[in-house]
Amino acid sequence: MTEHLVVIGADAAGMSAASQARRRRGLDQLRITAFERGTFSSYSACGIPYWVGGEVPGRDALIARTPAEHRSRGIDLRLGTEVVEIDPVGRRVRGRELATGAEQWTGYDHLVIATGAEPVRPDRPGFTAPGVHGVQTLDEGAALLDSLRHGVRQVVVVGGGYIGVEVAEAMLRRGLEVTMLHRTPEPMPTLDLDLGRLVREGLERLGVAVLPGAEALEVLLGPDGRPRAVRSTAGEHPADLVVLGLGVRPRTALARAAGLPLGVYGGLRTDETMRVLGTEDVWAGGDCVEVLNLVSGRHQHVALGTHANKHGLVIGTNLGGGRAAFPGVVGTAVTRVCDLEIARTGLTERQATAAGLRHTVAVVESTAQAGYLPGAPRLTVKILAEHGTGRLLGMQIVGGPGAAKRIDVAAVALAGRLTVEQLVHQDLGYAPPFSPVWDPVLVAARKAANQL
Amino acid sequence: MTEHLVVIGADAAGMSAASQARRRRGLDQLRITAFERGTFSSYSACGIPYWVGGEVPGRDALIARTPAEHRSRGIDLRLGTEVVEIDPVGRRVRGRELATGAEQWTGYDHLVIATGAEPVRPDRPGFTAPGVHGVQTLDEGAALLDSLRHGVRQVVVVGGGYIGVEVAEAMLRRGLEVTMLHRTPEPMPTLDLDLGRLVREGLERLGVAVLPGAEALEVLLGPDGRPRAVRSTAGEHPADLVVLGLGVRPRTALARAAGLPLGVYGGLRTDETMRVLGTEDVWAGGDCVEVLNLVSGRHQHVALGTHANKHGLVIGTNLGGGRAAFPGVVGTAVTRVCDLEIARTGLTERQATAAGLRHTVAVVESTAQAGYLPGAPRLTVKILAEHGTGRLLGMQIVGGPGAAKRIDVAAVALAGRLTVEQLVHQDLGYAPPFSPVWDPVLVAARKAANQL
Repeated sequence: MTEHLVVIGADAAGMSAASQARRRRGLDQLRITAFERGTFSSYSACGIPYWVGGEVPGRDALIARTPAEHRSRGIDLRLGTEVVEIDPVGRRVRGRELATGAEQWTGYDHLVIATGAEPVRPDRPGFTAPGVHGVQTLDEGAALLDSLRHGVRQVVVVGGGYIGVEVAEAMLRRGLEVTMLHRTPEPMPTLDLDLGRLVREGLERLGVAVLPGAEALEVLLGPDGRPRAVRSTAGEHPADLVVLGLGVRPRTALARAAGLPLGVYGGLRTDETMRVLGTEDVWAGGDCVEVLNLVSGRHQHVALGTHANKHGLVIGTNLGGGRAAFPGVVGTAVTRVCDLEIARTGLTERQATAAGLRHTVAVVESTAQAGYLPGAPRLTVKILAEHGTGRLLGMQIVGGPGAAKRIDVAAVALAGRLTVEQLVHQDLGYAPPFSPVWDPVLVAARKAANQL
Repeated sequence: MTEHLVVIGADAAGMSAASQARRRRGLDQLRITAFERGTFSSYSACGIPYWVGGEVPGRDALIARTPAEHRSRGIDLRLGTEVVEIDPVGRRVRGRELATGAEQWTGYDHLVIATGAEPVRPDRPGFTAPGVHGVQTLDEGAALLDSLRHGVRQVVVVGGGYIGVEVAEAMLRRGLEVTMLHRTPEPMPTLDLDLGRLVREGLERLGVAVLPGAEALEVLLGPDGRPRAVRSTAGEHPADLVVLGLGVRPRTALARAAGLPLGVYGGLRTDETMRVLGTEDVWAGGDCVEVLNLVSGRHQHVALGTHANKHGLVIGTNLGGGRAAFPGVVGTAVTRVCDLEIARTGLTERQATAAGLRHTVAVVESTAQAGYLPGAPRLTVKILAEHGTGRLLGMQIVGGPGAAKRIDVAAVALAGRLTVEQLVHQDLGYAPPFSPVWDPVLVAARKAANQL
């Protein structure tokens, strides 16, 4: 008998799941319907800042697979259709065609919830005006690009996290004056303050006016109804464009209404196979779920395309009769603002302390190439290791080109629960254009090992 | 009582050992004498191609620590003094001052052998003429730079391994016409042939005339006694400069004469603490030892500054009353020729077959950044995994900027004996400037896992 797989949300997690299930089960075995309220499928939301900044030439470059391509693979993709209710007992979802308002129930044998995340937008005056933009969707990116045609000169970026710094770079590339407001004492709150300071200094060198500890209160509008300034706890900042980079939270109202289990961050809770806890036939992945952090042993919310794709692969494999598991994350994240690279994995000092883990901290300064090569990019590595066990707990890196991807070594070491002493002896690639004879990651590990 | 540590060879391994022992034991506890037949200490031999190519401005930049600095730290460093005999029973070494020929026995309580490696030089006509150069020592580098002042236009590089390709880059940077001869079917014999072919194609795109399967037979000299051509099995190749990049072998004649244990590659054999097997008081490290390959379980010879430094640290720690071990290598190596990056770790197909390991092979092509970023550097990843266990056995990468250091992920995975299935789920750093949403290393792992 043909079973029916229904997918809610046609981006990374949802369509990876659908595609992988399709690869493993033919049309006669599995019918697949995917509902998407938007007008696009399978695109790189992470690429939007690079499109907005002019580095990526056009929107279509960000689309990994078009609706037509999905349909040609036997996936019935319904764009412009929002699922407004899940009935887990009746195994059906209620879809609403946004253009007509027409509603219809669709039954399922297997359901994949991949509703993604929604950007945090302050519920304060002016934040919904034209000229105030998010960068989470292709439509938002297009609207921002459209705003840039209004003779924009000054932009205020609200938020100093990943999206904030990426948007700052994009706006610098557009030749705009950039002011960044963020509530925390330093930008990049997923780093400790000492490394966050390096990011702020880097932003300032690039010409960004960074205002730490400044909470945006209101977007002040001009006679045309577009921004003229942002008022914050630190004063008034002229702006003819405002971009929001305040992070995202799981989009799970639908799941919540269906009584599905959510975690403390509002994300769906699943087991390792990405099956929603307490269900037999409901799966979830991507930005709408919480994931296990293998270092802290706690669940957290991480909105990252790379996890979403893996979730989709795991779900699709399991739906297709195979066996796959997503073991968890270690909290790796990298970004860039112009040639300043930023990376983190595992726990920060703050997180390690909160988790009750006694730890030592070492900070080293080194270079991404042999120091004798002129212009060898400088970098700072911060490492945390647990007292007693010597286990690596986390790493943060800020520096020039070649800095960020070094974090991958720590990411693999964290997943393997390596001690810093073991880390010291890893056989990493060495040649002068790529590393000093002691890779900075190993220098940091060595310093931490000495301290323990 | 003050003990006496004698070190033979004042480069990476020897002086790291001496420095680390000094850090842990004061002058009243440990007297340290280091014999060095050359005129320099603690320099980066790996940096010589970049000096010769003009990227590193001068010789002194390559010297990490001068003799004076070592002496100021209480290490009695005797330059121009060659140790010509080790008497392990009498616990003494016979040193010869090269300038005077004067010889003297020096007793030791602990001996560190760090005599390094010697370049392979064909015992064939013309190979010792002026204008025929190695690049292993600072003196050789200086001689090569001196030769460049003789109106050099055409250079033949003999050898297609790490040194060969690095010298090729250096000579290209000097604006010379470069011909590369190598005996193997493709350059970079530490890679499999399919990846070696990519290196050859890259060299050819850069303008290097690569002659595979060509063995150098003779350097033909002009009336001035300098090269005019190299004759090989492939013909005659005009050359007014010849650079040798034929690799190195352990410099262990001294150790052999003293009856110390050598391995099949002629390197000293030690235990994990870097103590020479069968001895109590003799240690060895760096390019003169063989190291355990953790993947194959066999010993091999790897001449790399990064291992030498680690060996020195381990020896110095143990001599200083601490406990340290060098667990082994996984065979990681990286290099670059202009913007073509080359990396390998673990076993090649050839090596896996020789080790009797049944394996699957996957090759993937991807990019070092999100593919939609214009100019995203292309790269090829080859992966090997063991049948039955699924264990990662090796990886090779050839590609543009950002390719090579990705090998570190595989290096850590190899040391941890990860399966390719486990590798797929590593939480690697992702952002469009650094990686596609599936890192190429993970794509390769996924393909191999699917095949198993």
